[in-house]
Amino acid sequence: MITIWNEYRSERTPDNPAAELYPEGIHTVLSSAFAQARLDHRTAYLDQPEYGLPDPVLENTDVLFWWGYLAHDEIPDALVDRIQERVLGGMGLVLLHSSHHAKVFKRMLGTSGSLTYRVRGEKERLWVVNPGHPIAAGLGAFVELPQAEMYGEPFDIPQPDELVFVSWFEGGEVFRSGCCWQRGRGRIFYFRPGHEAFPIYHNAQVQQILINAARWATPAGPIEPPVTSRRDDALE
Amino acid sequence: MITIWNEYRSERTPDNPAAELYPEGIHTVLSSAFAQARLDHRTAYLDQPEYGLPDPVLENTDVLFWWGYLAHDEIPDALVDRIQERVLGGMGLVLLHSSHHAKVFKRMLGTSGSLTYRVRGEKERLWVVNPGHPIAAGLGAFVELPQAEMYGEPFDIPQPDELVFVSWFEGGEVFRSGCCWQRGRGRIFYFRPGHEAFPIYHNAQVQQILINAARWATPAGPIEPPVTSRRDDALE
Amino acid sequence: MITIWNEYRSERTPDNPAAELYPEGIHTVLSSAFAQARLDHRTAYLDQPEYGLPDPVLENTDVLFWWGYLAHDEIPDALVDRIQERVLGGMGLVLLHSSHHAKVFKRMLGTSGSLTYRVRGEKERLWVVNPGHPIAAGLGAFVELPQAEMYGEPFDIPQPDELVFVSWFEGGEVFRSGCCWQRGRGRIFYFRPGHEAFPIYHNAQVQQILINAARWATPAGPIEPPVTSRRDDALE
Amino acid sequence: MITIWNEYRSERTPDNPAAELYPEGIHTVLSSAFAQARLDHRTAYLDQPEYGLPDPVLENTDVLFWWGYLAHDEIPDALVDRIQERVLGGMGLVLLHSSHHAKVFKRMLGTSGSLTYRVRGEKERLWVVNPGHPIAAGLGAFVELPQAEMYGEPFDIPQPDELVFVSWFEGGEVFRSGCCWQRGRGRIFYFRPGHEAFPIYHNAQVQQILINAARWATPAGPIEPPVTSRRDDALE
Repeated sequence: MITIWNEYRSERTPDNPAAELYPEGIHTVLSSAFAQARLDHRTAYLDQPEYGLPDPVLENTDVLFWWGYLAHDEIPDALVDRIQERVLGGMGLVLLHSSHHAKVFKRMLGTSGSLTYRVRGEKERLWVVNPGHPIAAGLGAFVELPQAEMYGEPFDIPQPDELVFVSWFEGGEVFRSGCCWQRGRGRIFYFRPGHEAFPIYHNAQVQQILINAARWATPAGPIEPPVTSRRDDALE
Repeated sequence: MITIWNEYRSERTPDNPAAELYPEGIHTVLSSAFAQARLDHRTAYLDQPEYGLPDPVLENTDVLFWWGYLAHDEIPDALVDRIQERVLGGMGLVLLHSSHHAKVFKRMLGTSGSLTYRVRGEKERLWVVNPGHPIAAGLGAFVELPQAEMYGEPFDIPQPDELVFVSWFEGGEVFRSGCCWQRGRGRIFYFRPGHEAFPIYHNAQVQQILINAARWATPAGPIEPPVTSRRDDALE
Repeated sequence: MITIWNEYRSERTPDNPAAELYPEGIHTVLSSAFAQARLDHRTAYLDQPEYGLPDPVLENTDVLFWWGYLAHDEIPDALVDRIQERVLGGMGLVLLHSSHHAKVFKRMLGTSGSLTYRVRGEKERLWVVNPGHPIAAGLGAFVELPQAEMYGEPFDIPQPDELVFVSWFEGGEVFRSGCCWQRGRGRIFYFRPGHEAFPIYHNAQVQQILINAARWATPAGPIEPPVTSRRDDALE
Repeated sequence: MITIWNEYRSERTPDNPAAELYPEGIHTVLSSAFAQARLDHRTAYLDQPEYGLPDPVLENTDVLFWWGYLAHDEIPDALVDRIQERVLGGMGLVLLHSSHHAKVFKRMLGTSGSLTYRVRGEKERLWVVNPGHPIAAGLGAFVELPQAEMYGEPFDIPQPDELVFVSWFEGGEVFRSGCCWQRGRGRIFYFRPGHEAFPIYHNAQVQQILINAARWATPAGPIEPPVTSRRDDALE
C-alpha cells in the first residue's frame, strides 16, 4: 500500500497558482496517475487528524510519498521518529521537490538539503544518466519540462547510492534531480521536479517516473519492527 | 586543531575496569599518542562546562574525536546541531566504539547504529580490506587484539563510502569496523575497537590507525559556515 | 532465460573430489535447484562447440552464471568481448567462486581479483550485512557451511556498489563474499562459496541465494545492442 | 614524479587547430603549469621509443596523466597491462578528455566510455557538485569555458566513487565531467574538458584543477608490485 502524503496548503491558498493547477491538491493528481497504473494507494495530508499519518495508516504503508514546502516545522519530531523507524524497517520513501528541506529528509540523510533556486519558469531537461535503472524504465534520453523552477548545485546531500537523473536548466545550472539511497532496509528516492506553480505532476513522463519509483521503493519482504542493539552471548 | 572529546564517566567509576586501565581517562591516553605524532590537539569531556564544547572550542576544532557510552542522552540536541553544522562545513569527525549509539552518530548517518554485542574478552582480528587507504598506512594485513568486546552484524549504517577494516571475532562473528563517509564538506570515520574494559587504546597499532584517521579527516581548506538554501536570480 | 555456464573439467577428472560430489557437473546441480524454483534456464560448458556460448545462446541469455577454475585462459578474448557487450547492454552476470580470476571478471571490474586462500575444509559463516537486499531474502542472520575453502582479504576488487555477505572463517580470516556491481545496464554479482571439493552447491541456503541472485540480475527491460559514441548535432 | 603522456599527433598536423593552440603539444602547456606549481614532473609522447613509457619511466611514475584521441589502437595491450598493474599497485591515473575511449580507460573501468558529442564551440559551465573535494579546492561555484566541445549523457562509466564536476552545455546537455574511482591502491580521475581545438588547457582554473588532481592522485606510500593470489596455510 502506497500513501501519498501532501502538505496541501498552497493549493488551498487563494491566488496561489497551485490553486488553479491542483484544485484538489497535488496528491489527487498523483492518485489518478497511480490508479491508472493500478497501484494500490491512498492519500493523506497535513491538516487531517494526526497529520494524516496515525499509526494504523503508517503501519500499513509500504511506500510513503512526501510533498512539503511551507509547513515543514509543523511536523512533530515524534512523527519523524516513527517514519524513520519504518523506513529503516523497509518502507520506501519518495521525497518530492521542496521536501529537500523536510524534517524527514534531513533525518534520513544527515545533511541540510540546501541548494540554490530561482523561479522564472525556465526550461528544464531531465537527463537520464543511469539508463538501466528501473526508475528510468520507458523513458528516452531526457524528459523536457517547458517551465520549471530552477534548483542548482551544490546540493547538500550524501553522494547518492545511485544517481538516475541530472537536470539542465536554461539559465545555466545543473542539478542532481533523481537520487537513490538505501537506509536500513528501506529505499529512498528524491525527485526534484514538482513546483506547485507549474503543471509538473500533470506531465505523463513525470507520472511514469513516479510510478516507476513507487515500484522500485516497494520492499521485497515484510517490513521489520524497529531494530535495536542486541546482546548475543552464544559462542561459536 | 584536534579536539578529543570523552564522556569520561566509566574511568571515574570505582571498580569499573576502565578506572584501572585508563585512570586519567581514555582521552589522556589518546592525547599522549597524538603528542608523540606531533598532532596539534587538546582534550575535553562531558562534565566540563558546556559539555566541554563551548563555542570557542568547537569553532576552533578541525577534527573532533568522540567517545561516549553511558551518557548519550545527556548531550543536548542544540550541541548536536552545532556539531552537525560544523561537520557539514568541513570539520572531521571520528566516532569511537560505543559511539555508534551517540546522538551525533545517528544525526549524521540517519540510521540507528544497532548491532549485536558480547563481552567475553575474545580475540579480534582487524583485517585491512582497503590496503591503499590512508587510514591503513603502515599496517600489515591485519591487527590482532588479544581481548576485545565483540560487535556483530548486521550493523545498521548506510553503506560506507569507503570500507577500510572488517573484524573477525573468535566467537564466530564479523563486523565492518572501519567505515568512512563524507557528509557535506566533512569526513567521518567510525572505528569499532575501544571497549573501556580492555587496553585497546594502549595498543600501538590502534594508536597508529587513530593518528592516520586524524590526518585523513583534517579538512583541506577552511571550514565553511552553515550552508543554507540561497535564491539566485542571475540568469545565464 | 538464464544460462548456467560451467567449465566442467574438475568433475570429469578421475580422483578429483568433484567427480564424486558433482558426477554430472556443478551446472547440473544448479539446474535442478533452478528447475524447482521454476526459473527458465539451460546449461552450457566449456567443451561444447564454441565454448558452449555460440551467438544464438548468448544472444538469448538474460542472466549468465559462470563457474571457472582450471581453464580461464582457454576462453578467447573475442568471447569475453561479446559477454562484456551483452552485460553493458543489460544481461546479468553471476560469477561463482574461483571465477574471481576468470577473464570476464577482470574485464568487467578492472582489477586482478587476487586474494589469499587455503584448503583445509574449515567452517565458514556467511554473514548477511545488508539484510534488506533481495539476494538475502529468506535467510537468517548467517548461513553456516561446515567445510569450505578459505578465501581471505585483501580481495582486489572495486568497492562493491552493494555488499551483501561477509564471510567468517574458522582459521581467522574474513572475506567480502557477496558483492554487487552495476556496469552499463547490467548487474553483476560475485558469490564466493563453491569449491569443487565440498558440497556447497547442494546446500539449500546456497541454492536460495543463487535463485535470489538470478532474479535480482534479470534485466527489467530488453537488452540493448552495444553502445558506441554518437555525434549529436542537434542544438537546443 | 608525475609523467604527462600525450598522444601528440593533432598538434603536429598542419591545419589542425591544435597546431596553433598547442604548437609544442598539450603536454608542454601542462608542464608549464605544473612547473609553476612546483610539481615534480616530466613529459612523454606516443612517438618516442617504447611509446614514451619504457619500464624505467613507468616504474618511476607516481601519477600518470593521459591524453589520447586518434591513436588509441596503437597502444599495445602489453603496455596497458603494465599501466594497469602499476595503478593497482598505487600509481595515480588522470585521464583527459577524449581518453574516455583509451584502452587504459576501458581496462581500468570495464565499460565502453561511450557518450554523445558535438563540436560547435558552445559555452560550458563546469559545476562543482562536491565542494569539499580536494580536486575542487580554490574554485568558485563553477568554472566557465566560453567555447568547448560538448560531451553528453549517457556516459557509459561505473558510477563514480566521488563525483566532483557536472557540466552544463549551452546546447542543452549535461555531463559528469569530473569523476573519481579507486582501483586496487590507485586513484583514477577522469576530467572532461580538453578538446584540442579550444584553448582549454591554457585556462588558469583548468590548470588549477589538474594541479589539484595531481596532488590528490599521488599515492600516500610506496607503489606495490603486482598483486597475485597467495596460498596461506597458516591457521589461527
